[in-house]
Amino acid sequence: MLFVEKPKTYNFHFPSNIAIICAEYENQINLMTAAWHTQVSQKPPLYMVSISSQRYTHELIVYSREFSINFISYDLSQLAAFLGRTSGRDIEKVSVFDIALEQSVNIRTPFLKKAYAVYECKLYDYRRAGDHTLFIGQIVGVHYDENSFDPNLKTSPTLYLGSDKYATLDTSSVKIHSEKQVKDYLSKWVQDI
Amino acid sequence: MLFVEKPKTYNFHFPSNIAIICAEYENQINLMTAAWHTQVSQKPPLYMVSISSQRYTHELIVYSREFSINFISYDLSQLAAFLGRTSGRDIEKVSVFDIALEQSVNIRTPFLKKAYAVYECKLYDYRRAGDHTLFIGQIVGVHYDENSFDPNLKTSPTLYLGSDKYATLDTSSVKIHSEKQVKDYLSKWVQDI
Repeated sequence: MLFVEKPKTYNFHFPSNIAIICAEYENQINLMTAAWHTQVSQKPPLYMVSISSQRYTHELIVYSREFSINFISYDLSQLAAFLGRTSGRDIEKVSVFDIALEQSVNIRTPFLKKAYAVYECKLYDYRRAGDHTLFIGQIVGVHYDENSFDPNLKTSPTLYLGSDKYATLDTSSVKIHSEKQVKDYLSKWVQDI
Repeated sequence: MLFVEKPKTYNFHFPSNIAIICAEYENQINLMTAAWHTQVSQKPPLYMVSISSQRYTHELIVYSREFSINFISYDLSQLAAFLGRTSGRDIEKVSVFDIALEQSVNIRTPFLKKAYAVYECKLYDYRRAGDHTLFIGQIVGVHYDENSFDPNLKTSPTLYLGSDKYATLDTSSVKIHSEKQVKDYLSKWVQDI
């Protein structure tokens, strides 16, 4: 193992499933790509995305207090790069990248028609953390493509490795580690003592 | 697309790269498996993990104010399940699961010897979010196996799909979407108008 105190980039924790964040305020719609996001609570269901205060999306969410989180399959990975490397302050991304949107149910902000799963989120809380803002949304609705889940994901997601590199899941590698395996191990361990 | 307002579980955003969180306070060492974690800031480098207040690890981090985050390859996926399904209040996981630990450089908490990458973290901030606590750590050191990065990840990580299901990366699927692709698209788009 090598040790480095301050690497240039912190790409060691990737892959991260790419999320396309959609925000809308007063008919201004923008989409950005996020690699820094995770669920943070079960009850209530909360999902967090970390966004730089420089981003146009940051501004839109602060005003609209809602957003949609969209997960896309690997055949759309180029779209993730396009939405990540451009700013809604410079271009109107929906028309430039020819993005089809759908109406949400419980928020005004739309979602990506081609996503395989979508969380509709209402802003629950936000706070600064270093050079980013943690936007915590309460999930108020879920859209998903039923062919992509069994009920766990069985399609090819767009995973980010850092530094413009993308990859997807090896769906043939799926395995289950059940509670029974743990119990079997523990009961054997007790006998071994 | 199907719509559901309140699903039983929110597994639609998976896969998530599994992180083993190691915490130590007054010689009590514990390890737990986390699927809810992400980097949140570049300067300073901050990494967040969401942990239920029921967890023994939660208590240890509140007292010790530090933790290590460990990423493990797919051949160790069973260990992720074992550490996720047991509590340090019931068993001493390090001996029960025969875990080799290494001394950290800038924190007292050790790290997993078999991890392919490790972040040493000092507690920067923590706050409640729903039924979990967001622990934000400042990364004060990184250990990594140089054969696992090129500099992006090239080994097989342990990815979680929810409901006891695990999978790994399709390393043959890696592709690069460079800034040049975006510029080429935009210049073509402008000509097309």
